[in-house]
Amino acid sequence: MNDRFLKACRREPVDRTPVWFMRQAGRYMAEYQAIRRRHSILEICKTPELAAEVTLQPITRFNVDAAIIFADILLPLDAMGLGLEFIESKGPVLHHPIRSDEDVERLPAIGGEVFDYAFQAVRQTRIALADRVPLIGFAGAPFTLASYAIEGGSSRDYVRTKQMMYAQAESWHRMLSKFASVVVEYLRMQIRAGVNAIQLFDSWVGCLNPSDYEEYVLPHIQAIVQSLKPEGVPLIYFGTGTATLLTLIRKTGCEVVGLDWRVHLDDAWQTIGYDVAVQGNLDPIVLGAPIPEIQRRVRDILQRAGGRPGHIFNLGHGILPHTPLEGVDATIECVQRFPN
Amino acid sequence: MNDRFLKACRREPVDRTPVWFMRQAGRYMAEYQAIRRRHSILEICKTPELAAEVTLQPITRFNVDAAIIFADILLPLDAMGLGLEFIESKGPVLHHPIRSDEDVERLPAIGGEVFDYAFQAVRQTRIALADRVPLIGFAGAPFTLASYAIEGGSSRDYVRTKQMMYAQAESWHRMLSKFASVVVEYLRMQIRAGVNAIQLFDSWVGCLNPSDYEEYVLPHIQAIVQSLKPEGVPLIYFGTGTATLLTLIRKTGCEVVGLDWRVHLDDAWQTIGYDVAVQGNLDPIVLGAPIPEIQRRVRDILQRAGGRPGHIFNLGHGILPHTPLEGVDATIECVQRFPN
Repeated sequence: MNDRFLKACRREPVDRTPVWFMRQAGRYMAEYQAIRRRHSILEICKTPELAAEVTLQPITRFNVDAAIIFADILLPLDAMGLGLEFIESKGPVLHHPIRSDEDVERLPAIGGEVFDYAFQAVRQTRIALADRVPLIGFAGAPFTLASYAIEGGSSRDYVRTKQMMYAQAESWHRMLSKFASVVVEYLRMQIRAGVNAIQLFDSWVGCLNPSDYEEYVLPHIQAIVQSLKPEGVPLIYFGTGTATLLTLIRKTGCEVVGLDWRVHLDDAWQTIGYDVAVQGNLDPIVLGAPIPEIQRRVRDILQRAGGRPGHIFNLGHGILPHTPLEGVDATIECVQRFPN
Repeated sequence: MNDRFLKACRREPVDRTPVWFMRQAGRYMAEYQAIRRRHSILEICKTPELAAEVTLQPITRFNVDAAIIFADILLPLDAMGLGLEFIESKGPVLHHPIRSDEDVERLPAIGGEVFDYAFQAVRQTRIALADRVPLIGFAGAPFTLASYAIEGGSSRDYVRTKQMMYAQAESWHRMLSKFASVVVEYLRMQIRAGVNAIQLFDSWVGCLNPSDYEEYVLPHIQAIVQSLKPEGVPLIYFGTGTATLLTLIRKTGCEVVGLDWRVHLDDAWQTIGYDVAVQGNLDPIVLGAPIPEIQRRVRDILQRAGGRPGHIFNLGHGILPHTPLEGVDATIECVQRFPN
């Protein structure tokens, strides 16, 4: 197997920097759009053959160093009965949002068996991958799950989420504990089915100040990391807007920290400490820039990484829908040819 | 006049920390809603009597240390003919967005006389204030104006904005120069009509990485600051998500840096340097928290400021629509009674 990615997760030397892209299976690919015309997102997630097919699409098209299972960060909320639906042009909607202490009380405990579809999807994908590249499993992290569960969907300001955090701290912690347990079950199923690494998406945690992160979020991430340590696969913790949270994120115990584009990679890595690997940090919008601009920015990131073991090249957030394939190609090629 | 605020802008000692709130005249006040039922936002901005009345509402209701003229950050775009309209539940819309090099070429130069309504509004407000507290004037900063002008309204990812920045750098700089010139004309009118300080809102500039901020934004802020220096009023530069931009923001030459809530005030101030004043940095959502939680967070900020001259207490962004008045009262009282 091409093990550059896994070596970089463990901060071992590699022949060149590994590269993959968050949301590399997605709307910017015609092959993906063709499948989506016939199937909903949830159908693809829950039909192992389709999940495997979509996961493989970018592996067939691009020379990336890792695959990531096609799924959604919110599947734990779906499993808990919050009524997840993806509505065109609106994004994810939770039809039964959490608003009261009673709503939190009612949240069910979920065993791993609910995620049998994920187990099967990972199995089939591993077979289809035939050990070409490692496979990454993932889930949303408790805070980000809570933000969707409470707001009922996407949000700009996270007003209800923070209000609950500030006014109902006990329910908040109970809810995040429940989410953490389900996330552990879900990720454990993926690991046992064969994923080689896992990524925890705390995409919106950067809306918090450091004190709130430390008090209301960090303990739940630490619980997940501790529960999964015995499984022996590297864990990547990713969020956007986390510049002021990095020293706290180090305390999660994760092997790899995902960085958005708002930080200089060298500054961020120094803050986190070189004994943790880093992943990132190109602005996804750069993939749509003229090729020389892409190259200038890719090289800047690689120079800032300075050839230290433990850097995985990636974007600072998921690939955007209208990203041109040539931009993706140019980025991969630039990483692979660096320093030339 | 109560000059605590102006003294703090100049980093002079004060008897207690001055406090005011961004968007302190707004939807959370019944008095404001009553006016809005009869008049549009643009009508209020452009009718000096109404602008003065709304500006005074929070001064009458709360014991704040500064007034801020009722206006909108996008008025420079309105003056340039981009077709600004505020649409209920959608926010600001620009009916003639900027998409091409030709659109940039066509942007007109604007003389200060277009902003006569602002001049009159400031005049009348100063009279109505009767020197109780200083009056702050403001405008959107070039990047934030560009983001609305290009996207045609609010945005989550600023895709078109960054695409233009990356692919049409010459047009980008020409556009930002034009915006900077109009902003200078607009702010100069406000200063000559009597505002005692000005704030430049670069609300969304935190979506950029530091290199892009330095190359595509900073020179235009420096141009504005230099043009207005001779007017002799302090300038506050504010943005959200700017944790990684602070050392560059220092180079703008502004007297006061506005901080959002994602940074610890002490860390941010140390990064910027104590020879610049700071304003902020309470999360606006905290105003809706239980009173003891408000007090805990207000005191934390004041402790981090450490009694150094040059801290103005404020939120990390504008007051939100459903903010309870008691939360505003509790915050002000807590600042005024600190350290008790």
